[in-house]
Order: sequence, then C-alpha cells, then structure tokens
Amino acid sequence: MNQPPPSDRATVKRLPKRAAYDLATIHAILDEGLVCHVSFTIEGRPNVVPTIYVRIGENLYLHGSPASRMLQVVQRGEDVCIAVTIVDGLVLARSAFHHSMNYRSVVLFGTGSEVREPERKIEILRALSEHLIPGRWQDVRAPSAGELRQTLVVSIPIQEASAKIRTGPPLDEEPDYELPAWAGVLPLHLAAAMPIADPRLKPGIEPPVYAIDYRGPK
Amino acid sequence: MNQPPPSDRATVKRLPKRAAYDLATIHAILDEGLVCHVSFTIEGRPNVVPTIYVRIGENLYLHGSPASRMLQVVQRGEDVCIAVTIVDGLVLARSAFHHSMNYRSVVLFGTGSEVREPERKIEILRALSEHLIPGRWQDVRAPSAGELRQTLVVSIPIQEASAKIRTGPPLDEEPDYELPAWAGVLPLHLAAAMPIADPRLKPGIEPPVYAIDYRGPK
Repeated sequence: MNQPPPSDRATVKRLPKRAAYDLATIHAILDEGLVCHVSFTIEGRPNVVPTIYVRIGENLYLHGSPASRMLQVVQRGEDVCIAVTIVDGLVLARSAFHHSMNYRSVVLFGTGSEVREPERKIEILRALSEHLIPGRWQDVRAPSAGELRQTLVVSIPIQEASAKIRTGPPLDEEPDYELPAWAGVLPLHLAAAMPIADPRLKPGIEPPVYAIDYRGPK
Repeated sequence: MNQPPPSDRATVKRLPKRAAYDLATIHAILDEGLVCHVSFTIEGRPNVVPTIYVRIGENLYLHGSPASRMLQVVQRGEDVCIAVTIVDGLVLARSAFHHSMNYRSVVLFGTGSEVREPERKIEILRALSEHLIPGRWQDVRAPSAGELRQTLVVSIPIQEASAKIRTGPPLDEEPDYELPAWAGVLPLHLAAAMPIADPRLKPGIEPPVYAIDYRGPK
C-alpha cells in the first residue's frame, strides 16, 4: 500500500489516507467492477459515458460501435480519464456530517489506441464476456468477420492510476458516541434475481448455472 | 418520450431510439441512482470523480469538502458533465455480438454555482440524506455551524440532459433463434445485507427499520 503515486494527476488529493497505488489493489477493483465511466473532451468541454470494460494484464479494454464518439477519442489517442466505482455500503454515523460510504474506486488517466488485429480482438471480446458472465462465451455464436469489423476495440494502459478505498465503521466526534442513535454500516452489493427467459426461447432450454448462480464480474 | 433534445451536446448520438428527453423520465432515473460520476477538466484534460447527489426540483446538488477540486470547478461555474447509471440486467443473446445490458442512464451538461445560504444548505443536506436513506435524518445530530462551513454545496440546473434506456429481451439475428443457447435477461439490482453495528455502539440500541429493510435511494 506504500507504493508512490505514478504522476501528479494520478495522485489522490482528497483524503490521501484512503489512496493506494499498487497494481494488485488496482487490478482487483477493476476485475470486480461492472461498468466504468469514461471522461473525455469534445472541443475542450467535458463529457462522460458509461460502458463495460475488461482488464487484461496491464491494459483496460473498451469496445463498441465505430460510430461512438468516446471510442473515437480513444482511437485518436486523446486523453481520457476512467473511473470504476464499487459501492460496498452506507456508513451511518451519529451525526449527519460524519455519514459516509464504504467504497472501492479506481481512477485511471491515459491515452489509448485501437486494437486492429482480428484474432486479438476476438481474444479481448472473449475476455470481456468471461469477465462479465463467466462461462457464457462457449455457449454462444462467436462474432462473424462482419460483426468483428463493426466492433471497435481500444486499449488503454493502466499506468497512471490510483485506487481509493474506505472500509469500516463510522468515525464520530467523541461526544457524539453518547448519542442514542444506531450507528454502523449497511452493506450493499450488486445482486442478481432469477433469469427471465426470452419470450422466443425454444421450449426445453433451461437457464445455465452461470445465470442462475450469478455472482458478478470475475 | 417525444420531447426534443434541449441542445446538440445533450442529444444522444448512439442508438437514438433509446433516448428520452422528458423531465419526468430524467427525474425518475436521478431519484433512483446512488452515485453520479462528474466529468470536468483540469488544464484542459479530462477528470472524473464519483460522488453522491440529490435532485430537488430541476436542480442537482453535490456536496463535500471545500478542498475538492471537482466542487471548486463547479463553484467557479466551469462546464461539467454528470452521468447517473443504473444497471438493470445483463442481456444474454444467442450470439456474442448481440449481448447487451438493460440500463437507465442520465447524462447532464451544465454549469453550477455555490449554495451559500446556511438554511438552504441544511435543507439540501437533509434532502440528500433522505434520498439515500429515507428516515435517517431525524435520528442523527444535525450539522453544526462549523460543520456547515466545512461543507461546500453546489447546484447544477437540469437543463441540458438526456436519458438513455434499454429494456427487454435480447434481439438476435433471425437465423440465430434456431441455436440451442439459452437466451434472456439476468436482472441485477443493488441489494442490502443486514446492518453491521459499530463496535462502539452502546448496548441495547437496535438497528432502525430503514436500515433493516433498506430498498435503495428514493
């Protein structure tokens, strides 16, 4: 946890005690997240777009339509900033002021580039699928050459990144511990309900175990 | 759903059929979200920060330390772009290409300003608390004058905003409906586990109903 920040802009400014810069911590958060938010500029003005992603090694990969302005910004090698935020709980303190949230987040600054090689694109799309729904890829039709051409895949190196983590109970002002309010943590997590079959599903096809027993990204 | 977009930059460019611009739809999504991601620029380069928020009427409110660079950007009236994303499910198609996600998101462009009046700040902080944990505010110590001075509150008008929504089953290529893969939707939602008492909680204080029976932001 004592690794130094990789750059000034990737240095956590607020509550630096919550910061971590080691890759193991950063990777673990990225691997558990479902959606990232990609910040970029259009004519100098801020934009932000949610999208799914996958980490492979020391790169983050995004994909989508070649018409996506966000992906075009990455393709052109312009600056982006990407956040992944996992909410772990609400922290209920005895004072309104000390209410907080337990969370794990990563913020990554960098520039990316397009992945052009079709075999590599397939590998990345498979990894993305396996990250989101482990076990799914082998059950479905793989992308055709045409579908692959319609899919822009970009890579962003995880070099200027920071993690920020809060865990544990509330921290109240010492006199407030005498107050009669309940205090503690309300844990939150992403949960799955039972799968809903496509109305056009053919009779006799049962939902797979990875859907019935879904535990989130891996 | 047929209301026109309020500006060019707030016009959904990708998959415009999923877009909505009416305030009722936008407000409903904002009221159900927990965290927003605020995109802004520092020396022209993109940044993004997750934070909690509340909508009151036609404004979105953020709060935090006066040392927050993100809040300072809003305080100075510089452009921001704010996204709220609610993931409703994973859409499992018969082809890898047509996998998708059911979601409701809002993207808001605008400039904000500081809320200075202490009574108004208290009202906003109470609304924020009630949005996140309905019922909590009355149980806790309200902010002191000093705590209020340490809290920067900013307001951003919800004028240039769009919603984007995907619902329903997968849409496969017609020949793929013959494949033997299971297809459908895996519903996802934010769930709460049982509250965990602060180790310093005094004996005999039971967790409140709003924590035991938490159903997410309201």
